Amino acid sequence: MKITILGTGAVGLTLAGRLQSVGHSITLGTRNPEKTASRDEANPMTGESFAHWYKNNPALQLKQNAASVEGADLIINATRGDASLDVLESIGANKLQGKTMLDIANPLDFSKGMPPTLFVSNTTSLAEQIQEKFPGLKVVKALNTMSASIMVHPESIAGDHNVFVCGNHEEAKNTTIDVLKSLGWKQKNILDLGDITAARGTEMLLPIWLRLWNTFGDVNFNFHIQRN
Amino acid sequence: MKITILGTGAVGLTLAGRLQSVGHSITLGTRNPEKTASRDEANPMTGESFAHWYKNNPALQLKQNAASVEGADLIINATRGDASLDVLESIGANKLQGKTMLDIANPLDFSKGMPPTLFVSNTTSLAEQIQEKFPGLKVVKALNTMSASIMVHPESIAGDHNVFVCGNHEEAKNTTIDVLKSLGWKQKNILDLGDITAARGTEMLLPIWLRLWNTFGDVNFNFHIQRN
Repeated sequence: MKITILGTGAVGLTLAGRLQSVGHSITLGTRNPEKTASRDEANPMTGESFAHWYKNNPALQLKQNAASVEGADLIINATRGDASLDVLESIGANKLQGKTMLDIANPLDFSKGMPPTLFVSNTTSLAEQIQEKFPGLKVVKALNTMSASIMVHPESIAGDHNVFVCGNHEEAKNTTIDVLKSLGWKQKNILDLGDITAARGTEMLLPIWLRLWNTFGDVNFNFHIQRN
Repeated sequence: MKITILGTGAVGLTLAGRLQSVGHSITLGTRNPEKTASRDEANPMTGESFAHWYKNNPALQLKQNAASVEGADLIINATRGDASLDVLESIGANKLQGKTMLDIANPLDFSKGMPPTLFVSNTTSLAEQIQEKFPGLKVVKALNTMSASIMVHPESIAGDHNVFVCGNHEEAKNTTIDVLKSLGWKQKNILDLGDITAARGTEMLLPIWLRLWNTFGDVNFNFHIQRN
């Protein structure tokens, strides 16, 4: 599948490397490709600079955001939650028309210190705001409730644990689910919660996720819904 | 243990019956004991009227809220979230001074229709509001993330699943954990998330809990944090 990933942070790069390794064709979208390509400071999550990483992943294409989405079967929004709407606006509704977008961003507000709070929640969600602003885009929310390493290697956590999926467009959810399966997610652990309003619930998992990180001292855990 | 349960809804009665059956001495607190004792309409959750239930549970004491907390080793707040602060104020800070309270209420706002939203979230929680208003009360948040039947019969869901506990007072958490164990909760599934601010995270699980109820069509599920 031709997949464009918006965002060149640790999450975007983790997804890019792994999705490519399982056979997808990956384009990375960024505001300024030249500037991104020359970024030599180490990413605090991965310890690696973008320049170094990019040199080791020559099959990846790095493009300006608007150009990056052309021809994509799936767009993945891995930008910061507080930048997502701006990035999508800079691409423009025309280029997004009819596209499927897997939104993994969370509406985290770091402005009041740690832990971050949510800048939208309860009566709406970032995914709903994106869907509302770009009605021609088929938004699917998924993968936003776990660390990047678990997104791409679900088998790294023993036993069953879930990825939540929601969105208003069935075929877009099916495309997303195909990609999840290519990453190793089992059908029985992919939980379809219905339309995009379910993103309120999954984005509101972030406060307890952050608290669990604090409690355990690592992010090697995931949510599982236990039932008979 | 002498346990007072505030609230005579389905959750309060489920807890009362089961806590009594495992050996605790239970008092139920209500605004107007005579009126509550004569309530003959069927509870929509249990199908049973309070009057009928009370006749079958003669060992239980029914008292006015303020009198009900006297001598209690543990108070359980099973009132509606939007009534909790009023009920506690009617009891008064003096009577609550030094007491341990297990808060299982959720800040659900049904005024805008179904599903309910949260009337406090993100930067605070109902448990924190209670703790702040009654600094002499030792508030522990727990059990608010599952159905009443699972609270009192954790073995009804196969395998491991969690109850989250948080609060500012260690001995109050220990008292709560003892009661949880008397209900059948295993130590390894009791997750202590630290101080009372963690209640933001557990109360914010309600939107996805409500969504899962809608998805599954029943409430026979619980959250489990899966890790290696």
